Amino acid sequence: MSMQTGKQSICFETPPYIVSSASIVGKKEGEGPLGACFDLIGEDDKFGQDTWEEAESTLQKEAFGMAVGKAGLKKEEIRYLFSGDLLGQNIATSFGLMDYQVPLFGLYGACSTCGEALSLGAMCVAAGYADYVVAMTSSHFASAEKQFRFPLEYANQRPMSATWTVTGSGAYVLGKRKSNACITGITTGKIIDYGIKDSMNMGAAMAPAAADTICQNLKDFGRRPEDYDHIITGDLGSVGREILIDLLKKEGYDISEMHLDCGMLIYESKAQGTGAGGSGCGCSAVTLAGHFLKQVEQGKLQRILFVPTGALLSTVSFNEGKTVPGIAHGVVIEHAD
Amino acid sequence: MSMQTGKQSICFETPPYIVSSASIVGKKEGEGPLGACFDLIGEDDKFGQDTWEEAESTLQKEAFGMAVGKAGLKKEEIRYLFSGDLLGQNIATSFGLMDYQVPLFGLYGACSTCGEALSLGAMCVAAGYADYVVAMTSSHFASAEKQFRFPLEYANQRPMSATWTVTGSGAYVLGKRKSNACITGITTGKIIDYGIKDSMNMGAAMAPAAADTICQNLKDFGRRPEDYDHIITGDLGSVGREILIDLLKKEGYDISEMHLDCGMLIYESKAQGTGAGGSGCGCSAVTLAGHFLKQVEQGKLQRILFVPTGALLSTVSFNEGKTVPGIAHGVVIEHAD
Repeated sequence: MSMQTGKQSICFETPPYIVSSASIVGKKEGEGPLGACFDLIGEDDKFGQDTWEEAESTLQKEAFGMAVGKAGLKKEEIRYLFSGDLLGQNIATSFGLMDYQVPLFGLYGACSTCGEALSLGAMCVAAGYADYVVAMTSSHFASAEKQFRFPLEYANQRPMSATWTVTGSGAYVLGKRKSNACITGITTGKIIDYGIKDSMNMGAAMAPAAADTICQNLKDFGRRPEDYDHIITGDLGSVGREILIDLLKKEGYDISEMHLDCGMLIYESKAQGTGAGGSGCGCSAVTLAGHFLKQVEQGKLQRILFVPTGALLSTVSFNEGKTVPGIAHGVVIEHAD
Repeated sequence: MSMQTGKQSICFETPPYIVSSASIVGKKEGEGPLGACFDLIGEDDKFGQDTWEEAESTLQKEAFGMAVGKAGLKKEEIRYLFSGDLLGQNIATSFGLMDYQVPLFGLYGACSTCGEALSLGAMCVAAGYADYVVAMTSSHFASAEKQFRFPLEYANQRPMSATWTVTGSGAYVLGKRKSNACITGITTGKIIDYGIKDSMNMGAAMAPAAADTICQNLKDFGRRPEDYDHIITGDLGSVGREILIDLLKKEGYDISEMHLDCGMLIYESKAQGTGAGGSGCGCSAVTLAGHFLKQVEQGKLQRILFVPTGALLSTVSFNEGKTVPGIAHGVVIEHAD
């Protein structure tokens, strides 16, 4: 199989390894079903800072430091950083990571950013452009609500289809040094617009993009859904999951058995009042790092398709009556002996 | 010289070619000193749309179509798109390019985006991940003023250090197919913060980042400034240029002879009332495509260092009293016979 695989995928001849990862979350995520698997749980969602934006920057700073430390590396050994976040002008990334003085590729893929960062990071390492890179992202409930919806002080009500932005950051060191998990391929997503105009129903906006990327991944690699132990979307939530499964059935693929959604795993929805599930760049980033990656490393999972999903929501375009298009980037992660 | 060159550069063993480029600008840019060199000049800065954001999206749509057409390619032959813009959540990119249905890596590098897109695009082609990609970006005076400063209707006064956001989009098809210009190396920038807190003096915020990237490029490639016919920054303007030259003199490099700044070339500053010069992602993107690249293709310039400069300005962080850090990405472009 050549590197250029099918219409929009890459198969790595020498797969880059996920050398280490780190996950940091807020209090609510720590109280959720996956709480025990995260590296660090903040007791205060401001993480000792004055503003929500500084809190999110601190999440990135800590996650980077922890991932690099776990890999036994110094920051000087990280050649490039691939990171982005949900805030306008990527301020969580810029202010969180600038002290490390690592050359930065700033990314914007909404909540698909973890997939975009892992894809570009893997491409960079596999091509020999770097021995080690860090791919990472973050989100924060309070900074995201301020950016996209209502200030928390309004205490506005939320419909059940709304999701809850995860406070958290996940970071990954990718490199040529052998570990027990590697990235064997990627499928880069296109922007898909189904005309959704409800900023409280992001799952419906993202499901068609997830379906498109998963379908294309299966075609490009000549696989069936059951060739993956799990197909894991980022933050579709319960509403988006139904749409995804329906859309893929129409394409002849039944993924209902092996599909999981990070947004549905990270909270106990009813007890925690999180609506349709978790969302935000941090949602898939911490769930992969804390939960799934460990199972891949241990060999409990042999091959997964990780598909972070992004809703390209902007208050400006939204207020101008535009739709919310979606995008999803697929990353194939496999156990390595 | 290995691919990993020095501390933060890459030298391409098989340099990717710039197969074609396209530049589209607004009325004011068309009336400036470089007016004659652009492919298309809009008569109406709304480009037939209802909003400034839609106008900027139209710029990207047209620039992509024109660049791909000039290369004699179909949109289906473009494997990946690397693009971003200044607006929150990259809406000019998302809405401008989604109809093409090309897999997209969304970028955010403020006004350094053209350098970031060309860097990642060149890495992608040189590694064999794609036969053709498009790297592009845009900015629009009115959508940027609305995003970052004051609505145009306020008619607020501007200090002389302020720059004028260029209305324009530049697009580049990169590929393995031979042309008369190629990208032989890149130097990826770090975030540099000199503590500037004046959103009306972006040149000062970006100059230290430009100095850092240029200095690192010269060290990594073992070159002197005179090894480049020109060292071309993005949008420092006249205020930023002075700072850049001073900073590099302290490092032992005198670039006053070969330095040019796209922001200082694109307008006749006094006559057009544009303060310290042009700025925005589109500024360097259209000036390279319309002006410098043609000279490289013709062999009038043998080797240039193109360094788009970005000020990581956000209204949220700015209003919270934060500084405006800068970043700059260097791209080495050479004539090919």
